[in-house]
Parts: sequence; C-alpha cells; structure tokens
Amino acid sequence: MKIGLIGLGKMGLNLGKNLIDHKYQVAAFDPNIKAAEELIQYGGEGFPSLKALVQSLEKPRLLWIMVPHSVVDSIISEIAPFLSVGDIVIEAGNSHYKESVRRYNELKTIGVSFMDVGTSGGTEGARNGACYMIGGDLQSWKMVEPIFKATSVKNGYLYAGKAGSGHFLKMIHNGIEYGMMAAIGEGFEVLEKSEFDFDYEKVARVWNNGSVIRSWLMELTENAFSKDSKLGGIKGVMHSSGEGKWTVETALDLQAATPVIAMSLLSRYRSLDSDTFTGKVVAALRNEFGGHAVEKNLESVK
Amino acid sequence: MKIGLIGLGKMGLNLGKNLIDHKYQVAAFDPNIKAAEELIQYGGEGFPSLKALVQSLEKPRLLWIMVPHSVVDSIISEIAPFLSVGDIVIEAGNSHYKESVRRYNELKTIGVSFMDVGTSGGTEGARNGACYMIGGDLQSWKMVEPIFKATSVKNGYLYAGKAGSGHFLKMIHNGIEYGMMAAIGEGFEVLEKSEFDFDYEKVARVWNNGSVIRSWLMELTENAFSKDSKLGGIKGVMHSSGEGKWTVETALDLQAATPVIAMSLLSRYRSLDSDTFTGKVVAALRNEFGGHAVEKNLESVK
Repeated sequence: MKIGLIGLGKMGLNLGKNLIDHKYQVAAFDPNIKAAEELIQYGGEGFPSLKALVQSLEKPRLLWIMVPHSVVDSIISEIAPFLSVGDIVIEAGNSHYKESVRRYNELKTIGVSFMDVGTSGGTEGARNGACYMIGGDLQSWKMVEPIFKATSVKNGYLYAGKAGSGHFLKMIHNGIEYGMMAAIGEGFEVLEKSEFDFDYEKVARVWNNGSVIRSWLMELTENAFSKDSKLGGIKGVMHSSGEGKWTVETALDLQAATPVIAMSLLSRYRSLDSDTFTGKVVAALRNEFGGHAVEKNLESVK
Repeated sequence: MKIGLIGLGKMGLNLGKNLIDHKYQVAAFDPNIKAAEELIQYGGEGFPSLKALVQSLEKPRLLWIMVPHSVVDSIISEIAPFLSVGDIVIEAGNSHYKESVRRYNELKTIGVSFMDVGTSGGTEGARNGACYMIGGDLQSWKMVEPIFKATSVKNGYLYAGKAGSGHFLKMIHNGIEYGMMAAIGEGFEVLEKSEFDFDYEKVARVWNNGSVIRSWLMELTENAFSKDSKLGGIKGVMHSSGEGKWTVETALDLQAATPVIAMSLLSRYRSLDSDTFTGKVVAALRNEFGGHAVEKNLESVK
C-alpha cells in the first residue's frame, strides 16, 4: 500500500521512515529538498509538487498531512482539485478540533473522507512508535487502522469517534500536560528556595522509581537535570503552541471548571514578561494608600 | 539483623513482610492483635508493649515507626526512656518536616539518631518495593542503607541530606501529585462536558501508551474507569491528608510562587462543600446591582 506523505519536518520525516520500516510505500512531498532526499535514501519516493504527488497515487488515494496547523488549509485547497471520491485525507498535526470538523465537512462535499489525528510521543515516537488519537468516519477507519497499528506503540492508538474527536482528545491531552508540567516545575521551585541542598537529578530519579508521581515527564526532568544540574543555562520562559489555550477556551465554552489547567497556562504567559503592568499598578497603589516604597525603573529615566 | 517495627497498619504490615522476605528479623508491636498475629504467622515476632519490644532488641537498636503522624510524638515519648546512646529511630510516615527536625534535635540530646523517611508507592510498594526519601545523619545512613536498598524498587531510595530533608522531599512529592491529579481530573471534566462520546478507559489507555502524559497516575485512572466507566458510584469529593497544605504553606513561607499546586489544593477544599458562602455572596451582589435572579435555597424555608 502506498501512502502520500505531505510534510517532512521533524515529525513527518520520522513518520515516513517508520512507515517504510513497516513495509509501506511512501511517496512524499516537502519543499525542503534535503528532507525529501533523506527519505528517498531511506527507500521513499519524492515528488516535485503536491499535484505530482497526488497524481502518482492510485485510487482510492491515501494522503497523510504532517505539517504545522497554520498551513493545513492551504495544502488542502491545493490538493483538493486532484482528489477523487473515496480518497482519504489524514491530518495528523496539532489542529484545533473545530477546524478539523470544518475540513471534514468541506471535503465531504467532494466525497473525500477527512480524518483528524492527534499524535503524541514527540519525534522519537513518530520514528519508533507513536501514540494516536483518531477521529473521522468509522468506514474509513477500518481501512486505515493497520497503518496506525503498525506505526504506534502497543495499545498506542484509539479511534475516538466522529470527526473532530481525535484532535479534541489531543487538545485535552496537552492541557493535562500543561498542568502536570507546571506542578513538577513548582515542586522543584520550592525545593530550590528551601534550606536543603538537593541533587535534583537524584530527586527526579527517586521519584521515577516506585513513587506515585513516576511519569515520562519526570523522566524527562531527570534527563534535563543530568545535563545541567541547576538548569543554569536555561531561562524560565515558557512558550506555548496553542493547545493549552484551546483547552481553556473550550473549557470556558463548556462552562467546565478547570482552574489548575487555566493557571498553568496563565503562569506560562506570566513567564514571558520580564516585568508586568499588573505589578506596576499594584506597586503604585500600595504606594498611594500606604506610602509603601516602590522599586524605581531606572531604564525609564535614561 | 533485627528491626523493631512499630505500627502494623496498611503500610507497616506490608513493610514487615517485605523485610522478612529480605531475611531481616522483625520484632513488632501494634495494639491490633490481628495484625500482629498476621506478621507472626509470616515469620515475625510480636510483643505486648512498646517497652517489651524495645527491650527485646540488642544495642544499638534499630526502631522503625510506621504510624499516622498524629501519634508519632506519643510513641517516641513512650519509647525514649528505654533507648540508649547509638540507637537509631526511623520514622517513615508522613510527618511535617519541621516536626522531624524537632524530633531529631530532641532525640539527639539522649544520643539517639533520628531519621525522617518519606515513603511513596502505597501499600503495594511497601509490600514489594517502596520508594524512599531519607533525611538524617550520614553516619546512621551508612548503617541502615542496606535495609532501604533491600525493601525498595531499583533506584527507589535517596539519602537526601540533613534531618528533615526526607520528609521535605515527600511533602513536595505530594504537592506535585496534587497538581498532576487535578490536571488529569480537569481534562476528563472537559471530555465529559464535550459533544463527543468518549470511552474514558480507552482514552486513559491510549494516553498510557506512547503519549507525553503517560504516568502511574494515568494507569490508576485507566484502572478506575475499567471498574466504573463514568465513575457514577463515586462522589467528586476530594479529601486530603495534609501534605498538599504543607507544600503550599511552605511555599508561602519561602515566597515561592506555586499557583498551580495552590489551586489544586483549593479545588479540593471547594469539593468538600455542596454549597459555598462565596457563591451566596456573589449571587446576592449580582441580584443587588443588576436584579439578576438568584436560586432560592428551599431548605432554609422549611
């Protein structure tokens, strides 16, 4: 079976090799020639354009899109004219589930079955065994299940139901991840401010062996401290790429009380600022009503 | 080597068997005769009083206290008169680290070495391989390390440093646990309020296989949903037993910003009330300034 793979970034290239390992033929397109060449070396085929890629596939076609969510729509509109009734388009990036429902409905009008897939496990997972959450038509699912079974870890895929459910699950997965990561970070914050002299790599290691909080995230924590014992080389600036915000927005829409996940998101935003206007206003008010000293911003005087 | 084990509750009895499995002699005391008999059947010795237990041990004695933190002081004051210079007292329950530092200093005045040990992994861990965080004198540690190595999982023990550091680490471990559990709970809250029809056992299972949030807590989540698919038999009331509160109190003392862990604790408190005074006040104010309807408390009219 041949799969048309669109996108050979960190995730796509590893997934392509994973598919080839499992005896799938992979025809790929990526504007990055180097990535395409690496896949060709590994046994895949490369095509110079999306049109050429789509036209190289036999019907019913199977296309797997693995790109940043901001370019999914442009890729779909570029390939749509060359698709036929019965084709399946898998979108396995981090799209908002509502966008996936819209894309499902749009492609349905031309008889194409769209499947939304949340992929977890990082690049290592894409290469050697990912974790998939999959939404879309049951009929299409039955056709593509063997591919997901082959490229995931054992028990690492779930057909979650109707269109949107795959990306919804992935969104919530990431929201939970935000909260878990914040809890871990804050725990080490208290250790670092304490009177004790802990070896954080050893702390993370003991917590990974037999404790209630053992987890892959704690293993990554152990790994990080093994390379930099106080993380002195890293600034505590926590960027985010959307799914945490979507989780909180969805919780607001559903009136679902998620204070911990919301707080973990807001803590990330706070970390992006070296100073805050909140802080200026509160400091000014303390000064106004109580004469409490404020810290001058010497930058502004210059 | 003989160990004097005080307390044969869920943790102590399992630990006693674990010690016996590893060829330690265990002399025990617990007012619960049934638990003592169970240990005797397994190869331990039972004593009718703390005094008899302590006096049965050869010097230097090794006593291991495994009881609820509220009775630690009374036990120590009861055994102290029979202890000698060079004896070691291990306290492996969930005490506040400041209490452990006090106990360390008090016992030091009579030449007894006190060690504070945080134990994680639950009853199953106590039975088959626990996770230990240990504070106290290095010299004593060198004498007792083999016991901890024998009864823990591989890499599942850490000598963390001076007195108090073991229980401090365990406290923070539990604080992290509060945040992780709240994040997991809130994630499923959003799933449950969504338009999708997820099978939560399967969701937890896929998240346990290859995803970023795979963890022992998620395995327990999977287990819970396997027994009750919507947890319909359980009320969402979240009790707590102290360590989360201590973590937040310690963070306040150290001015360490831990909003996520604090929020997870406050969410537990909120869950204890079926109605809140906060809610009454806010509803009343909305009514006062905007004429917004309030929900009448029909209970109060009766």
